Amino acid sequence: MTQAETTPQHVYIEDAAPFDGQRITVKGWLYHKRSSGKIRFVVVRDGTGIMQCVASLADVGERVFEDIDRMTQESSLIVSGTVHAEPRAPGGYELTLESLQIVQIAEEYPITPKEHGTAFLMDHRHLWIRSRRQHAILRIRHTIVKAIRDFFDERKFTLFDPPIFTPSACEGTSTLFETDYFGEKAYLTQSGQLYGEAGAMAFGKIYTFGPTFRAEKSKTRRHLTEFWMIEPEVAYLDLDGAMDLAEDMIVFIMDRVLTTRMEELKVVERDVSMLERIKKPFPRITYTDAVDILKKNDIPFHWGDDIGGDEETTVSNQFDRPVMVHHFPAAIKAFYMKRDPQDDKLALGFDMLAPEGRGEIVGGAQREDDLDLLLKRIHEENLPEEAYDWFLDLRRFGSVPHAGYGLGLERTVAWVCGAPHLRETIPFPRMMSRLKP
Amino acid sequence: MTQAETTPQHVYIEDAAPFDGQRITVKGWLYHKRSSGKIRFVVVRDGTGIMQCVASLADVGERVFEDIDRMTQESSLIVSGTVHAEPRAPGGYELTLESLQIVQIAEEYPITPKEHGTAFLMDHRHLWIRSRRQHAILRIRHTIVKAIRDFFDERKFTLFDPPIFTPSACEGTSTLFETDYFGEKAYLTQSGQLYGEAGAMAFGKIYTFGPTFRAEKSKTRRHLTEFWMIEPEVAYLDLDGAMDLAEDMIVFIMDRVLTTRMEELKVVERDVSMLERIKKPFPRITYTDAVDILKKNDIPFHWGDDIGGDEETTVSNQFDRPVMVHHFPAAIKAFYMKRDPQDDKLALGFDMLAPEGRGEIVGGAQREDDLDLLLKRIHEENLPEEAYDWFLDLRRFGSVPHAGYGLGLERTVAWVCGAPHLRETIPFPRMMSRLKP
Repeated sequence: MTQAETTPQHVYIEDAAPFDGQRITVKGWLYHKRSSGKIRFVVVRDGTGIMQCVASLADVGERVFEDIDRMTQESSLIVSGTVHAEPRAPGGYELTLESLQIVQIAEEYPITPKEHGTAFLMDHRHLWIRSRRQHAILRIRHTIVKAIRDFFDERKFTLFDPPIFTPSACEGTSTLFETDYFGEKAYLTQSGQLYGEAGAMAFGKIYTFGPTFRAEKSKTRRHLTEFWMIEPEVAYLDLDGAMDLAEDMIVFIMDRVLTTRMEELKVVERDVSMLERIKKPFPRITYTDAVDILKKNDIPFHWGDDIGGDEETTVSNQFDRPVMVHHFPAAIKAFYMKRDPQDDKLALGFDMLAPEGRGEIVGGAQREDDLDLLLKRIHEENLPEEAYDWFLDLRRFGSVPHAGYGLGLERTVAWVCGAPHLRETIPFPRMMSRLKP
Repeated sequence: MTQAETTPQHVYIEDAAPFDGQRITVKGWLYHKRSSGKIRFVVVRDGTGIMQCVASLADVGERVFEDIDRMTQESSLIVSGTVHAEPRAPGGYELTLESLQIVQIAEEYPITPKEHGTAFLMDHRHLWIRSRRQHAILRIRHTIVKAIRDFFDERKFTLFDPPIFTPSACEGTSTLFETDYFGEKAYLTQSGQLYGEAGAMAFGKIYTFGPTFRAEKSKTRRHLTEFWMIEPEVAYLDLDGAMDLAEDMIVFIMDRVLTTRMEELKVVERDVSMLERIKKPFPRITYTDAVDILKKNDIPFHWGDDIGGDEETTVSNQFDRPVMVHHFPAAIKAFYMKRDPQDDKLALGFDMLAPEGRGEIVGGAQREDDLDLLLKRIHEENLPEEAYDWFLDLRRFGSVPHAGYGLGLERTVAWVCGAPHLRETIPFPRMMSRLKP
């Protein structure tokens, strides 16, 4: 048996380094190829990396050269040969080809190096995710998800999956997706927070991590109809504690991405100096401070108004790292936020605005823990008290100060990657005009 | 300042061991209390464990005794004192009480040590999760989720979140939840597999982990309308490889639970010897072997029929660990399963049946990778070809052998915990007649 006839061990490209100088097999797809006299360069991707394979006519023979020549982009193939370090090769390793087996010759691949329109790429999302930039973004997404989970797991938070089907509309039905639930109406969750509060009373500290839904009629680049949220909730935590937790979490995420995904950050051409400066402490300013900043920047704004996207950018542009704005006018915030005991007009909520005009990525609050005040708020907002009966129970049976927040996963991925649009940050984005594939 | 006036460090009960002999503060809820002459025993839970606090009149004074006496079950409180090992105490540590602060006196708690009906407990699920057994099951759920994620992350699978909103019904609409999606019909996903296949072609090996939905009209203890699924999918993997992966995963989960959750397994009164025997290799039998087993056990059964719940129990009862049944009649399996090249009547699918009559916990297959055969199957089953166009693209552009499977999270949790009904395995179960709280 000649050397070329044995099949060496299958190795994923990202794991090739320890096999330097050894014979391996790589299974993947043709990324591209080029020819230089009696040499063929076959660049293979296997989903974990790309590797250049070098074939000389003398080594592999006419037959393999013919196979290489008839292979199209994204054809599937299995190659074997000796791997060795080659600093000039993409990924740093190169394979001296010994054998090549075509698995399938692909039809003419629709996504080519030329420019494609967004609609075309979105229609081909199932293939587009193979492209280098999309691949890199989704690997960074994976790393961010894992960092977030590790952050909470290491701190012994209990994962607490809230229901997706909810019986009542928490804050109006206009942005809710509705479904028929065996004759009843059910709504898809917009937030697991209320359930998370029940979890915090049972487990002390919990986090939810799941999809949430919003029937946004807006077509902006900052909105998806289906997006993933992380919502920690902690008993015996106050507003400051929630801001500390959010700050620690963001720093943890950045450290993880910068230590493990530099390769992918390079692919997406991210200016990593913008991420390296995300260190504690993050500035914390009150809503009133933020209004002052707007006024100093000649933005017409009245105390009491909601801070919109453009205003957020003006405020966050004053800082080189995320800024936390807290103590909002209670009137513009949700009924469940605790009022400031010092000033009843203020709510103990906070938003974290990411730098570079990225807008709000975290929104949180200390929750109202007083039964009577919470009831009063529910009545003032004309919410159906009966729907909140179980939620009110949390204030009847051992109420404690507690706080939490929500982090939007896709906005975080977009910020880290410098992606202009959320559609690149999730495998199959769902938007008002996009339900396929 | 006396010792009792300083506030010692807040410590979670599960983290108390390193503080043996030191003063700490515990923040939680009154679990129960008893009195013995001039001693009061105050058992506090904080969501991470329970700790007995011992108060002597001489140490704490009349005022604290009065506070203890007026406290009701689940009242919230903050206690400080010196913690020390006490083997007889629940959790192994005891606190000599120095100070006690009532946060809130709870109203009369609806869940008492007396027996309650299931409907009552389900109506009070937001409180029921504080009970010891429910708390233990959900902590085990957390550990199983983490074990599954660690298993795939360590093997460098990329997390790939499939969409929840899907445009088309994969296998008929009768068990699908439908929603109006800006004038179009959208369905809630029953499985991320088809999208996962696109992911496997882009990333080599992926796993999905998210909620899936089924409008089951059955009220059995084995069905939820909303449940979490893990679905790995791997390019260049065959049926045997998928069974290897599923086997390794289950063994990994069991090891993790047995090394970290013995306390909780004790609470749920699980016979852990049943879990300790879950070791490799798991028996693998063909569908035809399974039919033979049924016949030997005098179960009337025809080759070609689907193996139902009772038959699964008969088959799995022959083994002391999970059994994998493979090579099913193609006619009873999904269109996307690859046919056995040796025998066109068989599909390269497998089910893993858990022991103790727990039924199917894993279902998987090698997928059909030939475009023409897949098209033929779609036409035979009268499925709308257009809806699968993007899925067929995966066979047009670099098709490769690939395989994967789905694991039902709640069924796994129920098996590990020995829970008779799935409703205990998720924080807020959703069933045909249960949408609240």
